[in-house]
Amino acid sequence: MFQKIEAKVLGVFMATEKGSFITEERAEVQVEFGGIPGDLHFGLTKKAGEREPMYEKGTEIFNRRQISIVSAEECAEVAQLLKIEEVRPEWLGANLIVEGIDNFTLLKEGSRIVFPSGAALLCEGANHPCIHPGKVIQSQYPEKKIAGKFVKMAYDRRGIVCVVEKPGIIKKGDKAVIHSYEHFKGKVELSN
Amino acid sequence: MFQKIEAKVLGVFMATEKGSFITEERAEVQVEFGGIPGDLHFGLTKKAGEREPMYEKGTEIFNRRQISIVSAEECAEVAQLLKIEEVRPEWLGANLIVEGIDNFTLLKEGSRIVFPSGAALLCEGANHPCIHPGKVIQSQYPEKKIAGKFVKMAYDRRGIVCVVEKPGIIKKGDKAVIHSYEHFKGKVELSN
Repeated sequence: MFQKIEAKVLGVFMATEKGSFITEERAEVQVEFGGIPGDLHFGLTKKAGEREPMYEKGTEIFNRRQISIVSAEECAEVAQLLKIEEVRPEWLGANLIVEGIDNFTLLKEGSRIVFPSGAALLCEGANHPCIHPGKVIQSQYPEKKIAGKFVKMAYDRRGIVCVVEKPGIIKKGDKAVIHSYEHFKGKVELSN
Repeated sequence: MFQKIEAKVLGVFMATEKGSFITEERAEVQVEFGGIPGDLHFGLTKKAGEREPMYEKGTEIFNRRQISIVSAEECAEVAQLLKIEEVRPEWLGANLIVEGIDNFTLLKEGSRIVFPSGAALLCEGANHPCIHPGKVIQSQYPEKKIAGKFVKMAYDRRGIVCVVEKPGIIKKGDKAVIHSYEHFKGKVELSN
């Protein structure tokens, strides 16, 4: 039911500046139930926004977007598609950047990422690109037209969002084990 | 990104008897962050068990299995496959039984089920059949051989597990709106 894949943590990040989703690198982060204390997205609950159109804006709802992770491979692909040198995890507001997983954004919901400290994250699914990081990338490359292209190019390369399943420390350089959840297609068909 | 489907709540249930996962019908249940207070599966955290082989048994982890839902259509299919009259939601330990959604178990993770009170559940994915409900069904039909067949026949018909996204009341007879999450396959391919 689970397949194990090794991944390397290339960097860990937090967003601590009021009014900005841009993250800054740290040597390590402590994760608790709810996310990374002090980070913009920390909390077991959050206020509903544009990503939750079924709720009135500002409604208190469970926070399934506690931690966001991107992959080095997909950031490089987005940079290539945008014809720029790099797309940095900070510009995307990512909390982690990992390396070593093909099509990381497509990691099946229910997969777990387990770190050496025992900390573990539960994959809640793909993060959907929105315009805001496109504007940040644009500001880094003012001579190019990027902002409008970002959403399309980053689709299915924007990484995943996670819930903290087990508290602990996540460090730059950690070797994480991804327990990749594979849905077994074994449904017995009805005969009539 | 979300498609709306209407579903009817045919029944709501709780497991309150110590040592048993079998649920009992109620007229309504109050859901809070963490599930249904007083129910066997209530809690923002739970102890890791057989379904979480990446953790030592008993480890405190986030509870993604707060509420389980089955569909009337799939329960009828399982009964047909097992050649018995019915499979009751209580025997499966379900908290809700709904009607009106094709292939309910395959509802995409990230879908929401919103009830008239404002209560809402977040789909965490398919529930995987284990042997225990098979034994309960067997006890109802002692003349048949069922227990060993249940897991196979119930695969992809066992319903889903959910996290409470917004507290409120869920009542028998409620018309719920399912905001079915559709993953848009719009990835731009790299040209080289």
